[in-house]
Amino acid sequence: MGQYIYGKNVVKQLLRDATAIQELFLAINDQEIISLAQKNHVKITRVDRRYLDKLLKTNNHQGVALIKEEYKMYTVDEILNDIQGHSGLIVVLDELCDPHNLGAILRTCDCVGVDGVIIKKNNAVGLTATVAKTSAGAIDTVKVASVTNLTKTIEYLKSKGYWIYGTGFDKAIDYRQSDYSENVVLVIGNEGKGISRLVKESCDYIIKLPMVGKISSLNASCATAVLLYEIYNKRFPL
Amino acid sequence: MGQYIYGKNVVKQLLRDATAIQELFLAINDQEIISLAQKNHVKITRVDRRYLDKLLKTNNHQGVALIKEEYKMYTVDEILNDIQGHSGLIVVLDELCDPHNLGAILRTCDCVGVDGVIIKKNNAVGLTATVAKTSAGAIDTVKVASVTNLTKTIEYLKSKGYWIYGTGFDKAIDYRQSDYSENVVLVIGNEGKGISRLVKESCDYIIKLPMVGKISSLNASCATAVLLYEIYNKRFPL
Repeated sequence: MGQYIYGKNVVKQLLRDATAIQELFLAINDQEIISLAQKNHVKITRVDRRYLDKLLKTNNHQGVALIKEEYKMYTVDEILNDIQGHSGLIVVLDELCDPHNLGAILRTCDCVGVDGVIIKKNNAVGLTATVAKTSAGAIDTVKVASVTNLTKTIEYLKSKGYWIYGTGFDKAIDYRQSDYSENVVLVIGNEGKGISRLVKESCDYIIKLPMVGKISSLNASCATAVLLYEIYNKRFPL
Repeated sequence: MGQYIYGKNVVKQLLRDATAIQELFLAINDQEIISLAQKNHVKITRVDRRYLDKLLKTNNHQGVALIKEEYKMYTVDEILNDIQGHSGLIVVLDELCDPHNLGAILRTCDCVGVDGVIIKKNNAVGLTATVAKTSAGAIDTVKVASVTNLTKTIEYLKSKGYWIYGTGFDKAIDYRQSDYSENVVLVIGNEGKGISRLVKESCDYIIKLPMVGKISSLNASCATAVLLYEIYNKRFPL
């Protein structure tokens, strides 16, 4: 099943960023849209406005719509149930905003064998075409669940035997101090604000990376990569 | 000293990406440019066309120019001479293209205390406004040198007692096998092509990260972060 998107501006944006577009429906002659679609090898279907009115159940489409793949999403339980015979490793993203960061994080999650990624439904970037592209395909190989209430989800994961590691500065321990042998949830915060207060309060450990320069934090996807490889290395030493 | 940039399109682009613009010179009434400048708090100076002709030594400016900070660049010798009392750590970027990656790498370099970053003058991203923004300020704290011939520079670094670590797959050793106690150069390749053949041939070691998923490589800035923190951790263990 796909998702319908309509209106000139968003269609142009999605065409520029061409991942996962299945078909373009066009009731107007817009040269920019046509050449974007051709350039990105998107199938163009000529329709009339009434066809779009019916298809989209609105007449607010400016004569243009496209159908886009929806990425498969999982539930938290589906992620948990698939973990067999090894300690679980789940990444929770607390209001991450930058699609490049989400894409790069999914890519790293594939590389180290993360069991699933949990994102917030609102106030956070979802699985967009930019994320797909930056993920280098990991959007299809890493299980992603999206939830409304992150604190509740974390409490649920705790009840399932997970230990929650958040990143931060206050009362933080060096990330190399833990052995990460148990079931682990790694919580990564928003690019600017870090982890929100309620989520932080439900963490069992706050960990930090050593920083010797003038800047106090890494890019979110870089920090995630360093932390996930540390967990991997502790679990599978040389 | 700043750098003059002129022409409507590039000026608009730089204004959108507002870092490091000192002043806008305007001989025309372009509402889009004016509102972009106001939105980004760029000082607007009204001039006439002849003023711009003289300032820019061309009349090909479309009535608009701006002055932009130039980022301070270093020579390889300046980077080497500043390394005192510890093993050197230099990052070489072989035709890296994505400004977000370069910015994120500079940020990580600041955080782990890298002594300098060497980039290529051609076929590679330089110190742009996007790099500045993504670097979170590291563009001003990390020494960057740009060179024409990377292979020659690497040979020079070898002659100065550096060991060259490149990333790759063929005949690569696990990155955790080295202790990185000597003077180290870490070479990171282009996002798509990796390290070029000649540069690879001048590496003393090819190292790789373990990958257990379906994707065979990390994002370039994520890989750099994992490798630099491994070097840091080997040099400064808990």
